[in-house]
Amino acid sequence: MKLLITGGGGFLGARLARTLLARGTLDGQRIERMVLTDIAPPPADLVADPRVEARTGALLTQTEALKTEAFDGVFHLASAVSGECEADFDLGLRSNLDSTRALLDALRANVNAGGKVTRFVFSSSVAVFGPDPAVPFPKLVADDTLPTPQTSYGTQKLICEHLIADYTRKGYLDGRAARLMTVTVRPGKPNGAASSFFSGIIREPLAGVESICPVSPDVSHPMASPTRTVEGLIAVYEATREAFVGRTALNLPGLNVRVADMLDALEEVAGPKVRALVRFERDERVAGIVANWPSGATAVRAGKLGLHPHDNFADIIRLYIEDCKAQPNANQTLKGLSL
Amino acid sequence: MKLLITGGGGFLGARLARTLLARGTLDGQRIERMVLTDIAPPPADLVADPRVEARTGALLTQTEALKTEAFDGVFHLASAVSGECEADFDLGLRSNLDSTRALLDALRANVNAGGKVTRFVFSSSVAVFGPDPAVPFPKLVADDTLPTPQTSYGTQKLICEHLIADYTRKGYLDGRAARLMTVTVRPGKPNGAASSFFSGIIREPLAGVESICPVSPDVSHPMASPTRTVEGLIAVYEATREAFVGRTALNLPGLNVRVADMLDALEEVAGPKVRALVRFERDERVAGIVANWPSGATAVRAGKLGLHPHDNFADIIRLYIEDCKAQPNANQTLKGLSL
Repeated sequence: MKLLITGGGGFLGARLARTLLARGTLDGQRIERMVLTDIAPPPADLVADPRVEARTGALLTQTEALKTEAFDGVFHLASAVSGECEADFDLGLRSNLDSTRALLDALRANVNAGGKVTRFVFSSSVAVFGPDPAVPFPKLVADDTLPTPQTSYGTQKLICEHLIADYTRKGYLDGRAARLMTVTVRPGKPNGAASSFFSGIIREPLAGVESICPVSPDVSHPMASPTRTVEGLIAVYEATREAFVGRTALNLPGLNVRVADMLDALEEVAGPKVRALVRFERDERVAGIVANWPSGATAVRAGKLGLHPHDNFADIIRLYIEDCKAQPNANQTLKGLSL
Repeated sequence: MKLLITGGGGFLGARLARTLLARGTLDGQRIERMVLTDIAPPPADLVADPRVEARTGALLTQTEALKTEAFDGVFHLASAVSGECEADFDLGLRSNLDSTRALLDALRANVNAGGKVTRFVFSSSVAVFGPDPAVPFPKLVADDTLPTPQTSYGTQKLICEHLIADYTRKGYLDGRAARLMTVTVRPGKPNGAASSFFSGIIREPLAGVESICPVSPDVSHPMASPTRTVEGLIAVYEATREAFVGRTALNLPGLNVRVADMLDALEEVAGPKVRALVRFERDERVAGIVANWPSGATAVRAGKLGLHPHDNFADIIRLYIEDCKAQPNANQTLKGLSL
């Protein structure tokens, strides 16, 4: 089979690619070819795999050619992140809305030319939810909570969910939208996402570096490890249409934790000196965005697919530490553990 | 003030224009100029009004010029209808999604150039609602029912609702989306809307012509007269932001009636011979679309703006008859009354 992963050079995309290549199969089919598109090239280990073809450049510049290229499956992860979309409205529209539309139309062109219907997993986001004065906003957002997004990023994700549902209804693709919870702990450097600090307050102290938390310790949010998030995307791909149920998006599982709980878990795993590296300094821009995010989520439909959140945040931190230990730069990324 | 009505040559748009011109003011401001855009020219009485400027052609060809033209208010009614959008996917995307996006971006360009924030009323539709197996579908759809549209038309309307909410949040316009119920009784000829028969089964018999009902007499649906629909659009325009509440769309009021109730009302108003002109002959295409529509709606937020549905369908028929009597061709449109 031939797969396309958009955003395949990014953290989650590369991780998904690596997981799939290691499995060798998806939905019972052998993975023969995997195209990774992204604005930056994917990591070297992926490029070195003979099954992988990397295509570097904005997705929107690549979709015209995709009109005559057949794929068995697509994981559409490419996206500008929430902070970027708030700062640059046009960027968000182009990267998140126009690019998705063009990708969907390329797959539709394949079908209209007699080609196969591609299975399509879309990484939507818990950011589709937000409080609007006209409607009740539940403590925990569910699969069927009314999304009233309070960011451009969330709006664009929601719009894509509905485009994908309609293209699926028309038979132009076999689309499934899965709402990712905030993925923590992300390795590397902070990115433009307003949620970036959720990883930073764990990752930086573990590396022996001070981290600033821009929101109150009482802020609560649904979190998922990169491992469980990738598992979720694959399970949604492999689900039958009947098991997925309907065409509306589902929530992937998240552990609902407060920032204070995350720091308690950090202390449990890495000790009080590491925890002490987190300093609270309110950032109104970030706090304002996060204030409109749900404090927790449920994932009943994902549960029926066998997907569940972690039991506690310490487990998520331990998974991150294991990941770091497998990397050559572990002496840097885990420098804080020797404090 | 200067207003733009897109779809201003259509039935509802022309009726809205006529109502506003007769009032002379909107939200306390004198209407000095009214631009009507549509693919066909507006009726002669509107063209003859010195305040009116008609611009004929697809909206998408007109939006570039709108980037440097200021409007105090816009009523965005232009739309391809549900049946057309199911038959021609590209037409729906172009007419309902791309055109709205281009119009919003034109208004945003005005704001970015230092111009004023335009008040913007969007005619969304009860067609945003539909049953998806993954979520409960209530007997009556409310303002805050989760929309899971089952037509491209409904999908595109819902997407526009969310675009408008986000452009409003960003300060690019003052947008309000109002979901129209099925407008009945429309004069003239059947159109491509799947809901067209709801008017046809009243209008044709009143004109002494046989009408075919393509769905079962048990089909129930929320209906509103053209008069109340136009009143609703104007009230939504004139509402303060605080009275509108939030940025999510609201339902305009509709009377929830079954086809059988409509025909009972027709008999009450026009007698059994007129009713007998309606023949049931199932059309699978239309029945399939309508089966996915809600059987009724509530409109709590609109009620708080002073908007209410008619008490009974006979009143809606009587309003239609009054409208016909005011027209020179009443002897044709009401020919059935002499049966």
